[in-house]
Amino acid sequence: MAGDRRSLARLITAIENGKAAQVLQDLEPGKPHVVGVTGPPGAGKSTLVDLLITEARNAGNTVAGLLVDPSSPFSGGAILGDRVRMQNHITDKGVYLRSLANRGHLGGLSHAVPAASALLSAIGFDVIIIETVGVGQAEVDIVRHCDTVVVILSPGWGDGIQAAKAGLMEIGDVFVVNKADRDGVEQTVSDVKQMLMLGEQVGGPLEWEPPVLESVATTGAGIGEIWAALVSHREYLDSSNEGQRRTADRWEAEFRAALHVALIGTLDSRVVDELVADVRRGVMSPYLAAERALSR
Amino acid sequence: MAGDRRSLARLITAIENGKAAQVLQDLEPGKPHVVGVTGPPGAGKSTLVDLLITEARNAGNTVAGLLVDPSSPFSGGAILGDRVRMQNHITDKGVYLRSLANRGHLGGLSHAVPAASALLSAIGFDVIIIETVGVGQAEVDIVRHCDTVVVILSPGWGDGIQAAKAGLMEIGDVFVVNKADRDGVEQTVSDVKQMLMLGEQVGGPLEWEPPVLESVATTGAGIGEIWAALVSHREYLDSSNEGQRRTADRWEAEFRAALHVALIGTLDSRVVDELVADVRRGVMSPYLAAERALSR
Repeated sequence: MAGDRRSLARLITAIENGKAAQVLQDLEPGKPHVVGVTGPPGAGKSTLVDLLITEARNAGNTVAGLLVDPSSPFSGGAILGDRVRMQNHITDKGVYLRSLANRGHLGGLSHAVPAASALLSAIGFDVIIIETVGVGQAEVDIVRHCDTVVVILSPGWGDGIQAAKAGLMEIGDVFVVNKADRDGVEQTVSDVKQMLMLGEQVGGPLEWEPPVLESVATTGAGIGEIWAALVSHREYLDSSNEGQRRTADRWEAEFRAALHVALIGTLDSRVVDELVADVRRGVMSPYLAAERALSR
Repeated sequence: MAGDRRSLARLITAIENGKAAQVLQDLEPGKPHVVGVTGPPGAGKSTLVDLLITEARNAGNTVAGLLVDPSSPFSGGAILGDRVRMQNHITDKGVYLRSLANRGHLGGLSHAVPAASALLSAIGFDVIIIETVGVGQAEVDIVRHCDTVVVILSPGWGDGIQAAKAGLMEIGDVFVVNKADRDGVEQTVSDVKQMLMLGEQVGGPLEWEPPVLESVATTGAGIGEIWAALVSHREYLDSSNEGQRRTADRWEAEFRAALHVALIGTLDSRVVDELVADVRRGVMSPYLAAERALSR
């Protein structure tokens, strides 16, 4: 709470190691703006997040960034190729960046990410940006309960449809088509807008109309508009029931994940792994295996 | 095992009530063809499933049908408006039909559906058809681990894109555009084909090319082709690693769900509900609540 970064890093490592309950149970959650950023690899997410951190800082916020790679078995303070990015902010005490990867621990990232975010919230960061490396069910699950979800795409054939396929249309509060200096940007923007329109025709009018913005991360063009959209969305959440609902959903999901981890933690993981192998080979029924896990 | 339907009904009710482990732990799973059927409401799923049951019977199979409504809090033997359908097969001892709905029990349908399917498999049904009422994440999760997933759509503007949005393009092994006597069928068929093609361009060529078939459920047109596609897909599964992988994934998912239910079952559900309410109101941290749940 006094700002010691090494303590913070150690606490996040403890969370990754399944000790979220011990770390968090006595902390009061803050009221940060939790922003999730997702989209296909190569869309320019990291550069945009880097610029967003600067925008958030310029607006007077302290910022924590969590870079999440569900597919990577490796983790650590900053070993995921984002050392360069961190150097842009390394002397800034108002910025904290951290990578999280799937170490195969209990509950995995579905547990560690909300817990790490809760810790950063309790410490008092104003803005928490959770960036996923890829796109898929795991990534969608990770950002689902953020206050504001930013989906970043780049122009290219089929991107709009790919976004829909990946379940991104449903979760995006703000859409950004990056690399707006390339061919095909109008097509992608119009794809995304059309899909949002279709969604509205099927699901009824939306209280919040997700904007579809353009940017060029390499020059910084459009970044001001993205930040403004995030601020607008935060205002919308504050002025409607939606903000409270998302927070309550996030807390409930954290509770259920924590409960699951705590319960699984009462079992011997080697026993569970052995039983999974037996079940997959078909030599033990899933239900007998579940009973064995409990009795052993 | 001797064919008593009342015993079977009672066992499925026991599964719905969280007693899957007790019901299933001593049973040997069979090798049925587990077919999942999903798609938007109004596409004609129930009529098609009814016809598929007849096709499967004519091919010499015994058939069990599970009708799943994740959104309905009600359940029972057959209270979901499918009494009429059941009458078509009521005198046929080779057909068993059952509705499952979300009673809000531990683990819910994600647990009860695979467990009920495992029971029907152990009893020796050759074909098990799992039909979901709606479309959404819950429905997609329910059919995800079936051997063969049939996605049923009907012609209409935006259906292809809606299917993609709902995550159906990724899980379908066979696509059916029903109501092929209506306007717009060619458009929907070509939408679906185009999206499958795009998926292939992004994800690489598929070992199994999902066919896109047409049907008119009210006249039975096209039903023979759908059944033939199901048989082909089963042959593909048997001749490739994919069949074994899906079975192993299904068993592992059953094990993890059963383990979760067994662990949660060691807790007092009233305590858990109270804690969820506290967490959602923000009066208790999710992590403190998880510890409380365990200690109480």
